[in-house]
Amino acid sequence: MSTDREQAAFEAGIKLGALYHQWVGTPISVQTASGVEAVIEQSVGLQPFVEEIDVTLDRSLMNANAFGYAELSGLMFDVTIRTKVGATTCVAALRPENGYPLMRIVSCDEEEPLSDH
Amino acid sequence: MSTDREQAAFEAGIKLGALYHQWVGTPISVQTASGVEAVIEQSVGLQPFVEEIDVTLDRSLMNANAFGYAELSGLMFDVTIRTKVGATTCVAALRPENGYPLMRIVSCDEEEPLSDH
Amino acid sequence: MSTDREQAAFEAGIKLGALYHQWVGTPISVQTASGVEAVIEQSVGLQPFVEEIDVTLDRSLMNANAFGYAELSGLMFDVTIRTKVGATTCVAALRPENGYPLMRIVSCDEEEPLSDH
Amino acid sequence: MSTDREQAAFEAGIKLGALYHQWVGTPISVQTASGVEAVIEQSVGLQPFVEEIDVTLDRSLMNANAFGYAELSGLMFDVTIRTKVGATTCVAALRPENGYPLMRIVSCDEEEPLSDH
Repeated sequence: MSTDREQAAFEAGIKLGALYHQWVGTPISVQTASGVEAVIEQSVGLQPFVEEIDVTLDRSLMNANAFGYAELSGLMFDVTIRTKVGATTCVAALRPENGYPLMRIVSCDEEEPLSDH
Repeated sequence: MSTDREQAAFEAGIKLGALYHQWVGTPISVQTASGVEAVIEQSVGLQPFVEEIDVTLDRSLMNANAFGYAELSGLMFDVTIRTKVGATTCVAALRPENGYPLMRIVSCDEEEPLSDH
Repeated sequence: MSTDREQAAFEAGIKLGALYHQWVGTPISVQTASGVEAVIEQSVGLQPFVEEIDVTLDRSLMNANAFGYAELSGLMFDVTIRTKVGATTCVAALRPENGYPLMRIVSCDEEEPLSDH
Repeated sequence: MSTDREQAAFEAGIKLGALYHQWVGTPISVQTASGVEAVIEQSVGLQPFVEEIDVTLDRSLMNANAFGYAELSGLMFDVTIRTKVGATTCVAALRPENGYPLMRIVSCDEEEPLSDH
């Protein structure tokens, strides 16, 4: 059996794993970065259980190669995603930690029931 | 805060989301399918927290196009993965359900402590 | 040895092959399609030898699955790209032909030298 | 119009562009590299106009991250592909040049007609 908490965490993991491998390798530059951020947010936002997603790409890593552009790499991602299953909200992140593009759970919380007075 | 159970579920989600978007679109045929299955298993098996992964691709969907090959599509996947974080094991699957390549948690379980006699 | 004509054709092939495998599988809907088109155009446009690229995605194929979205598939692409190497311009296309997402050269032409009167 | 020479070059470009973006990002290690090489060769070999493909991945770049594995990156590729359209054979390569994963045409040649004596 699994609970809402585990399912919310599972869904957050799916989305982060998917977006990483979908977009790594895309040609990118400082000029096109904001468009790519918006499209990643919109695309992931179409998927079930996603409440909110925020994508920021590290422009300081977009060093142009000999041909004038960079490729989106794992360490450029700073992503926060919030999924919801039942009453549980899970917040997870993808961002560099010690030189590795780490995915981790930030929090899993049940909604506070409304107070009755 | 998150527990081992949520983290095990999160890791299973990451791996399923990642492998789906990494390999969808690969040219494939009935002749090459077993090699692709093995490489997906080996690649995913390199990642942290993965205890076991089994990948079977549905050969009945590998209908050759006009040029004699097919592309790996989401509905071909039948994947079972087992992740472990602390004492918790999570089993998750990717397989078709009602025409959709569904990812779901099969179980999340703590290891039974050894009996003392 | 290879000529400008062959190199212009080669570059067009690289870009079409790359964009196909980069973006296939992305979650998409009629609402997000124009943003995805623009980002593909901008990303490919960063690469060397690309003079112009036009991407249209077939919205009639974006049938929502049980979860309300579609995935970008090969048959949705209608792409025209123009590459230039030396004095040669190559126009190539990716679009469905007999149910297959066919990539083909439309034309390879040298620039007309300017008339001297 | 385009000739067999341009089409052979175009097809080589398609295959190199496609394989690059299909496999970049795959988890890989020195232990799994030969399996990945074989699967890339088999997959690309399914596609039309491909006569031969040879893939070698640079193991010296497979430096394990904190979690014990690497990701397939563009600079690891050393690929030679031979395409054939009509009587023309095109050989193209993907390999590092000045720190960039360069795709280039090696040669485009018509078959020698058989001598009549």
